[in-house]
Amino acid sequence: MGIVMGRNQYGKAEVRIFAVNRDNPRHTIKDLSVSTSLRGDLDAVHLTGDNSHCLPTDTQKNTVFAFAKEAPIGEIESFALRLGKHFVGTADGITGARILIDEYSWRRIPVGGTGHDHSFARSTDEKRTTAVTIDGDRAHVVSGLKDLMVLKSTGSEFWGYPKDKYTTLAETNERILATAVTARWRYRHPDVDWGKSFESIRATMLETFATTHSLALQQSLYEMGKAALDKHPEIAEVRLSLPNKHHFLVDLEFCGLENNNEVFFAADRPYGLIEGVVTRDDVEEAPQAWYSLPEF
Amino acid sequence: MGIVMGRNQYGKAEVRIFAVNRDNPRHTIKDLSVSTSLRGDLDAVHLTGDNSHCLPTDTQKNTVFAFAKEAPIGEIESFALRLGKHFVGTADGITGARILIDEYSWRRIPVGGTGHDHSFARSTDEKRTTAVTIDGDRAHVVSGLKDLMVLKSTGSEFWGYPKDKYTTLAETNERILATAVTARWRYRHPDVDWGKSFESIRATMLETFATTHSLALQQSLYEMGKAALDKHPEIAEVRLSLPNKHHFLVDLEFCGLENNNEVFFAADRPYGLIEGVVTRDDVEEAPQAWYSLPEF
Amino acid sequence: MGIVMGRNQYGKAEVRIFAVNRDNPRHTIKDLSVSTSLRGDLDAVHLTGDNSHCLPTDTQKNTVFAFAKEAPIGEIESFALRLGKHFVGTADGITGARILIDEYSWRRIPVGGTGHDHSFARSTDEKRTTAVTIDGDRAHVVSGLKDLMVLKSTGSEFWGYPKDKYTTLAETNERILATAVTARWRYRHPDVDWGKSFESIRATMLETFATTHSLALQQSLYEMGKAALDKHPEIAEVRLSLPNKHHFLVDLEFCGLENNNEVFFAADRPYGLIEGVVTRDDVEEAPQAWYSLPEF
Amino acid sequence: MGIVMGRNQYGKAEVRIFAVNRDNPRHTIKDLSVSTSLRGDLDAVHLTGDNSHCLPTDTQKNTVFAFAKEAPIGEIESFALRLGKHFVGTADGITGARILIDEYSWRRIPVGGTGHDHSFARSTDEKRTTAVTIDGDRAHVVSGLKDLMVLKSTGSEFWGYPKDKYTTLAETNERILATAVTARWRYRHPDVDWGKSFESIRATMLETFATTHSLALQQSLYEMGKAALDKHPEIAEVRLSLPNKHHFLVDLEFCGLENNNEVFFAADRPYGLIEGVVTRDDVEEAPQAWYSLPEF
Repeated sequence: MGIVMGRNQYGKAEVRIFAVNRDNPRHTIKDLSVSTSLRGDLDAVHLTGDNSHCLPTDTQKNTVFAFAKEAPIGEIESFALRLGKHFVGTADGITGARILIDEYSWRRIPVGGTGHDHSFARSTDEKRTTAVTIDGDRAHVVSGLKDLMVLKSTGSEFWGYPKDKYTTLAETNERILATAVTARWRYRHPDVDWGKSFESIRATMLETFATTHSLALQQSLYEMGKAALDKHPEIAEVRLSLPNKHHFLVDLEFCGLENNNEVFFAADRPYGLIEGVVTRDDVEEAPQAWYSLPEF
Repeated sequence: MGIVMGRNQYGKAEVRIFAVNRDNPRHTIKDLSVSTSLRGDLDAVHLTGDNSHCLPTDTQKNTVFAFAKEAPIGEIESFALRLGKHFVGTADGITGARILIDEYSWRRIPVGGTGHDHSFARSTDEKRTTAVTIDGDRAHVVSGLKDLMVLKSTGSEFWGYPKDKYTTLAETNERILATAVTARWRYRHPDVDWGKSFESIRATMLETFATTHSLALQQSLYEMGKAALDKHPEIAEVRLSLPNKHHFLVDLEFCGLENNNEVFFAADRPYGLIEGVVTRDDVEEAPQAWYSLPEF
Repeated sequence: MGIVMGRNQYGKAEVRIFAVNRDNPRHTIKDLSVSTSLRGDLDAVHLTGDNSHCLPTDTQKNTVFAFAKEAPIGEIESFALRLGKHFVGTADGITGARILIDEYSWRRIPVGGTGHDHSFARSTDEKRTTAVTIDGDRAHVVSGLKDLMVLKSTGSEFWGYPKDKYTTLAETNERILATAVTARWRYRHPDVDWGKSFESIRATMLETFATTHSLALQQSLYEMGKAALDKHPEIAEVRLSLPNKHHFLVDLEFCGLENNNEVFFAADRPYGLIEGVVTRDDVEEAPQAWYSLPEF
Repeated sequence: MGIVMGRNQYGKAEVRIFAVNRDNPRHTIKDLSVSTSLRGDLDAVHLTGDNSHCLPTDTQKNTVFAFAKEAPIGEIESFALRLGKHFVGTADGITGARILIDEYSWRRIPVGGTGHDHSFARSTDEKRTTAVTIDGDRAHVVSGLKDLMVLKSTGSEFWGYPKDKYTTLAETNERILATAVTARWRYRHPDVDWGKSFESIRATMLETFATTHSLALQQSLYEMGKAALDKHPEIAEVRLSLPNKHHFLVDLEFCGLENNNEVFFAADRPYGLIEGVVTRDDVEEAPQAWYSLPEF
């Protein structure tokens, strides 16, 4: 028996790259945070500090910047695939890579009724994401979004739950439902129009959240995942992490006011946390595609 | 000689209130963070712990919630004025109040081409703000916005600055200009259509940022303030705090690539910080309106 | 074929509980953030919004508070085991639970040379953590720490790495090594003096970081994990996530100064990220113990 | 009448500098965040983008790094005075400067019972601060601390306050008192042993917080300021900003448990905010020393 090195990865996290396409005076921009991780035969660097298989994280960072110049970045999935495939084999023993990208969105500043050519405002804190895993000659693409805040001011109930001696919550057929969506979906293959697929999945999940009369946030989670899978044969499964951002009705009886679901306290902590996978029952699981991703 | 209590204030900070107007099925919502501070003859509570002048911060919080029910919240300036005027005189010795409000914005979720009646998405991290000060029978209104990220991908230069032995920066006639706008403007009187004034000042400053060919971020700051003042006789002065969020051109010569202002590194720290007041030269100063506000 | 619900969990996150033991005038305190998740047969709540198996997260929160009163909290591992075992079976279909606890540390405020009986100062931002998983009648305990910032001002080198066309980093035999340790270790059984084990593993890893002459942060990672395993037969494996918090030597030649490893710029982003598992080669793997934990 | 430029300042914020003194094998370290602002005749840069008076913020950053090499940093007040005096006059029209420094603290990692020569752990998130203002040939020094979390588990009451129709809070003679101290004190002259003065003022305020039986957080604030002034003739006034970090007693009657001030919920928002100045009555006010400081 003995002590050994198990699974591991290393890389450069949160390379903040901003790129301008100046091909014509109406500029387009890309604003990304790119994190790279390499995997493979890395025992030597751990056991003895022998770096001969260890492509420096500084070089990984340089590569991200250079790749953004060598060809247009394009969709984040394409950029991540280019980077991941490049890294495998750059050093002896490197057999895998995982590229995470968050994309920030900007809109043109309106001037005289139209969007300006080269001036932009950040449109939202929501980020489009991808996590590409290269494992030898296999590639997995898991895309998604995070920090998408949504809320329903009615159309949400919660009742019929088990009670025990610690129960104080009253059942309700009228509550605020609010969450910050983190979603990730796994593609079945890379023959995808990434931008179009992203926009449609996002719109579908938003619309489903809006139109689902919700008896539980879990139900909304399932319906959102199901709607995306129904409409998008290119994806195999959807994983969602939905904090239940509580909005508590304020009891105003103390001053003689009836609060008819009008005034709420938006609480910070604690919050509910609902996490789950909605999946097709006839697809192969792909644990490698999800390995060490930060969310459920 | 001796030790005495100087200026002071106390209150409840960041009351997170969410209100729904359910008058018809197409709900409207208000999402606010309200901070209240009371001022006045508060020596006793400091010197001996005698609370007889000290309206509890818990009561201040309750009042915020109750006021949201007693009448519609309306524009944040109106709500802050109502609250501030109420607090003055609620307890012996309370002669002043300062109400800070941040407003979060939501948009309707599009469903079938139109916005949903009661489902919303947080549209941006930008906040509309107000700081109302009640000082006896005077009222000051300072409104603004914060966390508005803007960027120009061209149309910005920086040269002609003094050099000394510590200078390494190269002059440039082509750089990215990016900032997160915090702006506050002081109203000359309260006879204002608050929402309309806010939207117009915001649009004016954004448009000015976009169209100003900038030789220095200070110049953009001044032009933004001046444009707002030119168009809006109702405001006396504008204060702006503009972090210069550096986007450094990445030198790619190491791998034989020419980077023609296309690929940048978006840096976190340090950042430039440009702060200033643009004002009319014929208005009275109002230090009380600005007293203890967190930004320049 | 069809769409089905896959793995899922739900619960209450970040219940901030503060407990005072007042058995004698010299108070002791516990300051915790507790997150609970339940698992099991939860298809109905997802598919139809039927909550009959869904013990509300509000009840989970109440239970945490009540358990802190029913018996002393004790070590966080014991408290998490009590909570986790309680939740399994509280509702039909609930067959598993995962309890995460972060513990904040406080020290007594020194007064006249000794620690005060009931006045405390937060001693550090470092948190002691545990993640207890109850899976039917099995229990897994994974404890650790996070946000422990450490730094070596010498005794760190980096050279001998592969070079390619994107390499610019110079080799060095003298650099600053700094990281914020997140460590988690899995216990082989629950017959442990939790507090004593935690203190010894923490001290061992810190001492190993300090005394390891480092050729790569990976080597430090391995040595820290190995030292903990060598000394602590009660643990099966150690997982470490070590951001390489770069301190870049500032080139002062521009003003004629030689910087002999004295003045550094502490960078924010990007940062290296080194993650790995150090394990015994004769222990059973326990993926369930690690399932959905946020770090590597 | 017209529109003019009012007060303004600009500079480089949060220069993260880390310095090692390697004069002997037992290293000492300094970890600082330095923000510089210049003031003076800066109309031209605002009105026309003429940068001839505008020493670049990049040069300010370089200067901070170079000064750390040209002579030992020493106490943060001394370093800030050196920097501030240097900047005044570096460019035409620059007549003032304000230097903010936050200092992070580290302790030696214990190895074999003694602190290691060159390995350190971050000991706390508390920061020592200074704000030095150079105004022509005058210098003001305002030092302080921030993010010092303190708590009393007894010895705090709150009663005797005014009640109105919005009051629900119950009076109590037993509550948790917790706050995160931000303190700033103004020195009367620069002939001070900065480190010794800081340590003694900090210890005095902590001890006073601990030993004051508190009837209101305002009373604790005053006593803390007064104790510092009583013992330290070198300071003119103390300003304190004390958030009242509420710890609410959890009502456990729902499950038949009596909670005798043992189990509390540590709330995030809203929080009380108590701010005030404790001052000598025979010192000159110095608004310039405090101008645009971020706290009360």
